[in-house]
Amino acid sequence: MNMEKIQTLQGFRDYLPDTMRVRQRVIETVREVYEKYGFEPLDTPAIEHASLLIGKYGDEEKLIYKFKDNGDREVALRYDLTVPLARVISNHPELPKPFKRYQSALAWRAESPQRGRYREFMQFDVDTVGTLSPVADAEMVLVMAAAMKALALNDFTIRISHRGVLNAVMKAYKIGEKDGPAVIRQIDKLDKIGPEVVVKNITDILGAKTAQSLIDLIFDKSSDLLEKVESLIGEDKEGLEALANLTEIVSLLGGIKSKFIIDLSIVRGLDYYTGIVYETTLQKYPELGSVFSGGRYDKLMSKLAGVDLPAVGTSMGVDRLINALVATDFVTTPPLFCMAVFSGFEKDAVEMAEKLRTAGLRVAIASGDKLGKQMQYANNINASAVIMLGEDEITKGIVVVRNMQTGTQQDIKMDPTDGLVEALREFIK
Amino acid sequence: MNMEKIQTLQGFRDYLPDTMRVRQRVIETVREVYEKYGFEPLDTPAIEHASLLIGKYGDEEKLIYKFKDNGDREVALRYDLTVPLARVISNHPELPKPFKRYQSALAWRAESPQRGRYREFMQFDVDTVGTLSPVADAEMVLVMAAAMKALALNDFTIRISHRGVLNAVMKAYKIGEKDGPAVIRQIDKLDKIGPEVVVKNITDILGAKTAQSLIDLIFDKSSDLLEKVESLIGEDKEGLEALANLTEIVSLLGGIKSKFIIDLSIVRGLDYYTGIVYETTLQKYPELGSVFSGGRYDKLMSKLAGVDLPAVGTSMGVDRLINALVATDFVTTPPLFCMAVFSGFEKDAVEMAEKLRTAGLRVAIASGDKLGKQMQYANNINASAVIMLGEDEITKGIVVVRNMQTGTQQDIKMDPTDGLVEALREFIK
Repeated sequence: MNMEKIQTLQGFRDYLPDTMRVRQRVIETVREVYEKYGFEPLDTPAIEHASLLIGKYGDEEKLIYKFKDNGDREVALRYDLTVPLARVISNHPELPKPFKRYQSALAWRAESPQRGRYREFMQFDVDTVGTLSPVADAEMVLVMAAAMKALALNDFTIRISHRGVLNAVMKAYKIGEKDGPAVIRQIDKLDKIGPEVVVKNITDILGAKTAQSLIDLIFDKSSDLLEKVESLIGEDKEGLEALANLTEIVSLLGGIKSKFIIDLSIVRGLDYYTGIVYETTLQKYPELGSVFSGGRYDKLMSKLAGVDLPAVGTSMGVDRLINALVATDFVTTPPLFCMAVFSGFEKDAVEMAEKLRTAGLRVAIASGDKLGKQMQYANNINASAVIMLGEDEITKGIVVVRNMQTGTQQDIKMDPTDGLVEALREFIK
Repeated sequence: MNMEKIQTLQGFRDYLPDTMRVRQRVIETVREVYEKYGFEPLDTPAIEHASLLIGKYGDEEKLIYKFKDNGDREVALRYDLTVPLARVISNHPELPKPFKRYQSALAWRAESPQRGRYREFMQFDVDTVGTLSPVADAEMVLVMAAAMKALALNDFTIRISHRGVLNAVMKAYKIGEKDGPAVIRQIDKLDKIGPEVVVKNITDILGAKTAQSLIDLIFDKSSDLLEKVESLIGEDKEGLEALANLTEIVSLLGGIKSKFIIDLSIVRGLDYYTGIVYETTLQKYPELGSVFSGGRYDKLMSKLAGVDLPAVGTSMGVDRLINALVATDFVTTPPLFCMAVFSGFEKDAVEMAEKLRTAGLRVAIASGDKLGKQMQYANNINASAVIMLGEDEITKGIVVVRNMQTGTQQDIKMDPTDGLVEALREFIK
């Protein structure tokens, strides 16, 4: 069978070692941050009854991977981590509320594969289900900031808006249900097409003056933005409540003042957000878009699981972050040593390798070829140094080590309890 | 929508926090061991072209999850990690040989769900592809032993056999191709049904005397077993080569002498093994069966990927190990503190929680209810202690901490730089 022609499906990919190491490290690092905030790990199956997913994603439903299994059951592949979370909460009423969980898992969507859009991708969500407290909202922003710092990506900005506040602004501008969605879609595009084009695009709907005034406010980054909004929305009770909620959340974010801004242009596409919404962008990698986003969704759990639980959450763009981190020195693979193997001295090589591993070093063993080939192998696996241990060395009680970077060679005393490990570490510095 | 009736599909399961923590810890721990041996991480898509999997699994092929995707392509869910590995090696000729990789990923099989048999399960494989060296075989055994030790499961035995040696024994007993498979199937059942029943079952084929003599040898655990085998197989060149190979591998395992035995009853069901085969059992949990098994498979890569590469590998039974470890104290979740929140002092609670997290503690925040409810919440999330910080405390410059185990309460100075973290750690001991 000739497999060369069988590649991954379009929109799918292999993670080769260099990328995989970054993915593993990102997930472990962020998991540790989530644990510090009291979130707990959860995992759910990749395959669910299709009935769980049907009717949950609107127009996107056609992107679900859905099929009949061998028992003729309608099943579907996980589309996101929110619907399974709702099922778990519904199936396990014993879980404490608020339930705080994190989950990193694959999801599948039959998207048309564009640049950077995959049909299989990793989601990494954190959600607090069962509380309206602004403390829970603030914690989402804090945990994102803590995660970015833990990833050594300090150059980030969290852009915060609030659906209720945006609604109140729309109402103040007398934009009704008819025009609202079209205007919001344009606001959502501000980043991509810029304020001038957006104003132009909504002038037909609102008239030139209102359009300009609305977009001026939406685009306003000044520190008294919320005061302006307050005077705009006047007596609107719902609007004032939303504004008070946003103000309270912001008051809890004193510890990360320089890392977030209020930015009313943040809309988040999904209909289901009801309160705060946020996106996180990297100043150095604006092209990656938001690497961490979410918001409060108080009606969704009721719709999904029939349990009336308010919720707030955020989702990390694992693959986007990998793209940002692959270029950095965030993941430093510990140096790899390669034991050369001389015929008849396999036992000595294996024993030495085991001792060095026990002492904490990474050691691969070249397998059985001639020395030249073993050197080439050491080179191919990016070994830092080759450790040679044959008859000569054993007689002299040493190992000969060759630095693969510099080509230099050195004799080191053989005994691992006698400074060998330290000498090896030193030698490759 | 009432979701209560929608459960996971049969043969699938949720991993709730307690189990999930063990799974994460097992994988991280073993991954670290694999890294020490120079294995590299790899991941492949969950969905592949069905043509990749078809014709690879014999009778088991009917268990593959296979369906047409939205683009009418025949696709299939990953059935194991070996076939994708073969594809990766075929697609990426630039990968160094021997290629040493590990992969932990889900696989799906439409098994009839029995006790402990799931349709979705995690595989954790490590393989060395591209070398015949006995060092690679020995390393598989060593890495299994190192992994078990890292998991604090020291009570294990690795049972080693060799397909070539078993074949030579069969040949010496004049068991031909016709009867071989039936006899091997019976040997494979020795653990389950015992030697008496096996002898009885193969007496029809071999006669009573030969049957007894064969099973006596297969069941022999004495230290001169290999000498007995040698004199039995006499001049059979292939047999002697296999025996020499096994002997050489064993000679490389001096460092873990007490952790393995030669056990010719280890067959491994799969046809594709060609050399050494092994299983790992836990003395305390024999009912779990083998938690780590594999062997050498020199013909499979050629069959799968059209590249003639010998290979040796082992696969960890993640879920079986979770079952063994859930009952132990292998995973100790770091203690969780719960900040109580008093109305008007949310900001203080959040700030204190952030400081404690930065200092390394796990801190959840109860959200906004009355103190009694917050205490109940702290109890539900298994918090070790509740930290209270309201008007009184702030005036006095303290926090009040209540130990949820003992009910005792204590005042501690509020300043995190002034011993608060140490005092909290001490308080819950």
